[in-house]
Amino acid sequence: MTLWVRYEHDGATGFGTLDGEAIAVHAGDMFASPAPTGTTLALSAVRLLAPVRPGQFLGLWNNFHAMAAKQGNAIPETPLYFLKAPGSLLDPGGVIRPPASYSGRTVYEGELGIVIGQTCKDADEATAAAAIFGYTCVNDVTAIGFFEGDPAFVQWARAKGCDTFGPIGPAIATGLAWQSLQIRTLLDGRVRQDYPASDMILPPARIVSLLSREITLRPGDLIACGTSNGVLPMRPGMKVEVEIAGIGALVNSFATS
Amino acid sequence: MTLWVRYEHDGATGFGTLDGEAIAVHAGDMFASPAPTGTTLALSAVRLLAPVRPGQFLGLWNNFHAMAAKQGNAIPETPLYFLKAPGSLLDPGGVIRPPASYSGRTVYEGELGIVIGQTCKDADEATAAAAIFGYTCVNDVTAIGFFEGDPAFVQWARAKGCDTFGPIGPAIATGLAWQSLQIRTLLDGRVRQDYPASDMILPPARIVSLLSREITLRPGDLIACGTSNGVLPMRPGMKVEVEIAGIGALVNSFATS
Repeated sequence: MTLWVRYEHDGATGFGTLDGEAIAVHAGDMFASPAPTGTTLALSAVRLLAPVRPGQFLGLWNNFHAMAAKQGNAIPETPLYFLKAPGSLLDPGGVIRPPASYSGRTVYEGELGIVIGQTCKDADEATAAAAIFGYTCVNDVTAIGFFEGDPAFVQWARAKGCDTFGPIGPAIATGLAWQSLQIRTLLDGRVRQDYPASDMILPPARIVSLLSREITLRPGDLIACGTSNGVLPMRPGMKVEVEIAGIGALVNSFATS
Repeated sequence: MTLWVRYEHDGATGFGTLDGEAIAVHAGDMFASPAPTGTTLALSAVRLLAPVRPGQFLGLWNNFHAMAAKQGNAIPETPLYFLKAPGSLLDPGGVIRPPASYSGRTVYEGELGIVIGQTCKDADEATAAAAIFGYTCVNDVTAIGFFEGDPAFVQWARAKGCDTFGPIGPAIATGLAWQSLQIRTLLDGRVRQDYPASDMILPPARIVSLLSREITLRPGDLIACGTSNGVLPMRPGMKVEVEIAGIGALVNSFATS
């Protein structure tokens, strides 16, 4: 298992592998033969960035049995997906800040994120599995009040795509068995979501395979696998943490005003 | 008025300004002090590409009075927008090809597209107007059968984001007065849409201003302004043309199988 991170150090961005408190700096392309430079940086000396900048940032709705059961949703056979604006990306440690013009509730949604490593089009499940580079934590922040604006047009892009609504990180873990992962979301230290990835309706390789019939997926593209029960609004100044053992804890705060 | 194009020539991509049948090749960044190289290429010697590769590709629903009246939709006060997958981009001349797994109807939607030239966040209308680089033609291709899959989740991203569903071009026109533009869509040479941009509910500067409260817009981002009446399905082999005098004709074909 390898943990890939991106960082800012001395005003420049870089990437590498994380081993305990040290980053082995790499050069090249994270998805195509990255090479260690021999330099090591202390984790404490850098600011971690979102571990990838996805060209396409997709998210699934209704992909966990427990939540589908609770909400009475039908079990989908294909991914029910929306797009998050690529610019919604937020670094670990960044502040989630809803638009100044919005005064409704904003919720967290702790999720497992799939990071694509190879271009993938009309892929069968085996090819799709091989195209998955690794996994990261996603907070699929959602301004749920925007869903209510116009009954004829439910505004998913707006509710989910605002600036700062896409925290991801802190790392991309490769070589993880997704089936054994547990997704936990903590609000001010209190566990609010705690669900197994194995409860997924459509598992990662099937998601990637089915999506690739419609959208060519490219290295760095990110797919949030959907959330489960325990979604709640954030209040000003709260700390929100999406934690997946094996990947790490994605910690952000909600704006104070 | 200037027409900006991107092209492929001798296996390399480039960009420049179009004057009749000649392209004045430019170097640098289209949105930041591009400079003529002194080289000229014949339009006939290149293959035109989508004139920009948007990092974010947004589209509006219900933004024309005539269509709102016909469909009985309320007049929105803010942009009702969706996101198209950035990878849905298609070059002028490219073939629109729905997913092999999809057998429903696929419609054209001829639209005016706004190309952003400057980073734009919480912009007032004057600032937003200045951040608009120019305008292009958009065919907001839509697989309308995907809307019907799950009544609890209308799949806008899926219906509009498939590969090849985002033809744009052939050029970006700067210095155009959008108020006088007329958007026409021709199917196999027959005019099917013919509506004035001035019928827009939310005009370009207001769209950009309001969107920028939620999403930071960056150079190259593209916003399709919504369509009006006359949307129809395409049939195999048909030629579809979105034509806006002052910008040009965006010609694509629908796949034969």
